[in-house]
Amino acid sequence: MSGRIVLGANQYGKAEVRLVRITRDPSTGSGSGGRHEIEDLNVTSQLRGDFEACHTQGDNSQVVATDSQKNTVYAFAKQHGIGSPEQFLLTLGRHFVDAYPWVSGGRWEAEQYAWKRIPVDGQPHDHAFVRTGQETRTAVVQIDGDTTHVVAGLTDCTVLKSTGSEFHGFPRDQYTTLAETTDRILATSVTAWWRYTSTDLDFNALYDGIRDTLLATFASLHSYALQQTLFEMGKAALEAFPDVAEIKFSMPNKHHFLVDLEPFGLDNPNEVFFAADRPYGLIQATVEREGATPAPAAWATIPGFC
Amino acid sequence: MSGRIVLGANQYGKAEVRLVRITRDPSTGSGSGGRHEIEDLNVTSQLRGDFEACHTQGDNSQVVATDSQKNTVYAFAKQHGIGSPEQFLLTLGRHFVDAYPWVSGGRWEAEQYAWKRIPVDGQPHDHAFVRTGQETRTAVVQIDGDTTHVVAGLTDCTVLKSTGSEFHGFPRDQYTTLAETTDRILATSVTAWWRYTSTDLDFNALYDGIRDTLLATFASLHSYALQQTLFEMGKAALEAFPDVAEIKFSMPNKHHFLVDLEPFGLDNPNEVFFAADRPYGLIQATVEREGATPAPAAWATIPGFC
Amino acid sequence: MSGRIVLGANQYGKAEVRLVRITRDPSTGSGSGGRHEIEDLNVTSQLRGDFEACHTQGDNSQVVATDSQKNTVYAFAKQHGIGSPEQFLLTLGRHFVDAYPWVSGGRWEAEQYAWKRIPVDGQPHDHAFVRTGQETRTAVVQIDGDTTHVVAGLTDCTVLKSTGSEFHGFPRDQYTTLAETTDRILATSVTAWWRYTSTDLDFNALYDGIRDTLLATFASLHSYALQQTLFEMGKAALEAFPDVAEIKFSMPNKHHFLVDLEPFGLDNPNEVFFAADRPYGLIQATVEREGATPAPAAWATIPGFC
Amino acid sequence: MSGRIVLGANQYGKAEVRLVRITRDPSTGSGSGGRHEIEDLNVTSQLRGDFEACHTQGDNSQVVATDSQKNTVYAFAKQHGIGSPEQFLLTLGRHFVDAYPWVSGGRWEAEQYAWKRIPVDGQPHDHAFVRTGQETRTAVVQIDGDTTHVVAGLTDCTVLKSTGSEFHGFPRDQYTTLAETTDRILATSVTAWWRYTSTDLDFNALYDGIRDTLLATFASLHSYALQQTLFEMGKAALEAFPDVAEIKFSMPNKHHFLVDLEPFGLDNPNEVFFAADRPYGLIQATVEREGATPAPAAWATIPGFC
Repeated sequence: MSGRIVLGANQYGKAEVRLVRITRDPSTGSGSGGRHEIEDLNVTSQLRGDFEACHTQGDNSQVVATDSQKNTVYAFAKQHGIGSPEQFLLTLGRHFVDAYPWVSGGRWEAEQYAWKRIPVDGQPHDHAFVRTGQETRTAVVQIDGDTTHVVAGLTDCTVLKSTGSEFHGFPRDQYTTLAETTDRILATSVTAWWRYTSTDLDFNALYDGIRDTLLATFASLHSYALQQTLFEMGKAALEAFPDVAEIKFSMPNKHHFLVDLEPFGLDNPNEVFFAADRPYGLIQATVEREGATPAPAAWATIPGFC
Repeated sequence: MSGRIVLGANQYGKAEVRLVRITRDPSTGSGSGGRHEIEDLNVTSQLRGDFEACHTQGDNSQVVATDSQKNTVYAFAKQHGIGSPEQFLLTLGRHFVDAYPWVSGGRWEAEQYAWKRIPVDGQPHDHAFVRTGQETRTAVVQIDGDTTHVVAGLTDCTVLKSTGSEFHGFPRDQYTTLAETTDRILATSVTAWWRYTSTDLDFNALYDGIRDTLLATFASLHSYALQQTLFEMGKAALEAFPDVAEIKFSMPNKHHFLVDLEPFGLDNPNEVFFAADRPYGLIQATVEREGATPAPAAWATIPGFC
Repeated sequence: MSGRIVLGANQYGKAEVRLVRITRDPSTGSGSGGRHEIEDLNVTSQLRGDFEACHTQGDNSQVVATDSQKNTVYAFAKQHGIGSPEQFLLTLGRHFVDAYPWVSGGRWEAEQYAWKRIPVDGQPHDHAFVRTGQETRTAVVQIDGDTTHVVAGLTDCTVLKSTGSEFHGFPRDQYTTLAETTDRILATSVTAWWRYTSTDLDFNALYDGIRDTLLATFASLHSYALQQTLFEMGKAALEAFPDVAEIKFSMPNKHHFLVDLEPFGLDNPNEVFFAADRPYGLIQATVEREGATPAPAAWATIPGFC
Repeated sequence: MSGRIVLGANQYGKAEVRLVRITRDPSTGSGSGGRHEIEDLNVTSQLRGDFEACHTQGDNSQVVATDSQKNTVYAFAKQHGIGSPEQFLLTLGRHFVDAYPWVSGGRWEAEQYAWKRIPVDGQPHDHAFVRTGQETRTAVVQIDGDTTHVVAGLTDCTVLKSTGSEFHGFPRDQYTTLAETTDRILATSVTAWWRYTSTDLDFNALYDGIRDTLLATFASLHSYALQQTLFEMGKAALEAFPDVAEIKFSMPNKHHFLVDLEPFGLDNPNEVFFAADRPYGLIQATVEREGATPAPAAWATIPGFC
């Protein structure tokens, strides 16, 4: 436990750069640039490399200011557009690694928020939008020298099925009081992250396809445990999308307790539920392809996963 | 400033009773009760009346326990169903006023969360749902003896238009640094409350219609100020829905600042924006019918309005 | 329900202007201006007056830009200092009413966050601070012509007593399942607002004194209901501080349920509790001086009170 | 990318079990058990082991119900007391590994919230408390067979120094617009995690000592970069506490921008600041002992660190 005290792994940058990009297509309509597209992101840029002198001596000569990283985000949004969060982060990351010799890699992250067009007289409006959905699309790109990892996902996607879920057969011992059930509400808020095997993909189409597959599997599977639902969701995504190497889930079991109405002379055949906040079950697992090479560096900074 | 110290206005009850009601229609499908409907509410019940002895002497003989109020919420969800938050709160409120002689009135509030069916093979699923939208439907019913007020609304409905918004002509003095603009992003998160003139209405149809009208007006109006947009939204709703007596809005101006890209040798013709958090403009106003009788009691506990 | 549609009550301005004011006293120490004081506020400014043309015609010629209101907050922090949130808001509000003939009044609000000095070698540091407490000090000043109301308060002040609280004697009927108790945890998060009778007071000393009185009363009173605790807290404050006209409370009953450990062969004499989130009791009441003139305008925009 | 699809790393359990433990010492005072102590925790228990059948076949015969894990938390709080979050989690974790042969390890986490006694007539009250501070004490215990890791920390500890902080000498290129400064506000919200070298320590005394050391170093160091402040904080902790193997920090640079008051004819010698929300700098680094054996498994599930 003696020994000199030294700097270990480190990264730094600018977090939560809120970026809205409007793309105007004058060819598509009249006035103010015709039909507009909106891309709404929250971008974090963090650099890794040789930053020891800053930490140990306060020497900033290699510290690309976090303010400069923010400026680069905005400038790149103009110069290169966005297209997809994954593509934008890849372009951004490669710039930093190329531009600064002492930057060996880094971590670039984005959340993307969904908007849809407001309908007016039955037609989607050219340039007026309403935020849709609670869920957020996520992406993390990490570069380490010649290696690049792209991990994409979604979070806060809340789903519920009001039947088709059982839970029984678990061990009973001195600490067990839970009753078995053959019909319950199963609800969760899906956080999923999946790793792509390539950096050259149609990330938007993949995102839509994977999301739809996850939700449809949640809906269709007759469930005996949230763990089983999770595994089948991952399996379905891996089977349908060969560009996905593995997928990790963190899924709270958002308990909906059947209310005991007997004291009031009422039965309650799975009709009236109390939606509880805390505590909640928490199921986390990886679904992967047998024999695949693990990529721990891709996952090291994805929050909260095993 | 001398004088005996006494109890003034008061109310108490149970807040944020999370209630999920599943309605199963065996006639509509096979297995587990066919097609399910979900209603997802957060209900608050507060009583007003003669509760002085409790406050001043700790005498609980007239205190309908908040736990009993919660039980009543769940029991009524079974016995009477929900139908709409307004209808549910009316039934609940009338019960308390009728059942306890010393309860002269009260305040009942609900938030309702929207779900849509998960599509599987192109078909909406019978009993699997995904939360949709960020916005929340709201309702407050207040009863005072023979008077009943129903105020309904929505909150956290975030909208944005990427052109069709100007802001200029405001006074310039020693504290003015803001530039005038003839083209900006206009974004807000609509909180609206409207008062109904009756307790016997198709509240669900009205909600959908009013919401659509508000959004379409936001989208269509070429705006010279968020105040003008607000007023026209209210005017459109009042013109289209005679059962609405008045409508109040609280609308933050969610600033989207055009990023100055000149230092990087780039122009920025309304393409790249910084979405700011704080501070924000805050516009609050009532739109009403000329000569209508005011109803201050209906609004006294609606948070944050002028 | 016919009739022209018109603008009703309205106000607008800039919300949540985050303001940190450092005051350096070179006489008190060496280097960098000696001992520093920090004042950390979140300020909202809203104007009332003749803004009809803006709402109905998009005419901004009387719209003091919300950006200008923000600038004024920062300029006044330099010119006049802060001193107390109440004093700062009074100075700010009077400026707007005096400077713009069409501004007849308004609403100015502040939150203030507490910091304490970091101890180094047992001495409080001259210019290094740590945020302390969860609670926030609040103030609202409203001006309407010649009338000025000052309402001050605190929020998110979480207190708990682990004994000295009973709850029994409440009515039992078909919806009652709650057991009576002669010993329970009583916990709440105090939100209190009190109205001052004058604008010329030592607001900081009053705040400290009132806060201490509220907490000491919470601690000392043997409680038979949270309503009773609330009333005694208000009574103690009114008795000790004649400059307070009335006080309003909103106090959730943060339920701590005794865990049933019998299934595990253990007793639980008020030792192990589950701290629940929702639902919670909600107790709201005013404590006032008998015969005092009510001031509804002072309270109209204080959120959520009866 | 072919290959069978299989279960990878996984863990599950009950999250956010809110536990309040009151310890009564009848020997210390009169009535209701004399002087009370309060321990207020938020506990998460997650098991690792052989849970494959549940995931792949819905077979729950080895699934210790998350409800049973919750029950165990409460039962252990009664049987063993808490003492410190680290000690409580160690006892809890060892139980699960010992009791269920297919449980090979797991992860147990706690947050602890601080309370202090309410003063009444200058004396700290026996059984009435007020929540203090914004910061939260944290602990994670992980067991994998014979290996046990204890990582402790704190989060949301907001500190600020109003002078004694410079930032200059960083590289300037086409994306650099930030001005250099020799006097600025330095503010951050410290999240720190440190790994202990033993499971048999006085965790409460260590926590207090490490926290005080971190804060005093933040206050004392004349800073040329937040990275340097971070490193010196870690170095001071490692030097003073040999039981700490390494320490990781995640520290946002909470920007306080000097407001430009020149347009209003005012100077601003570091007195009036705008406290910004987003974006913020984000500095993350490990401080460790040279030559020490790394322990990646101890850190794998600590959120958000490099």
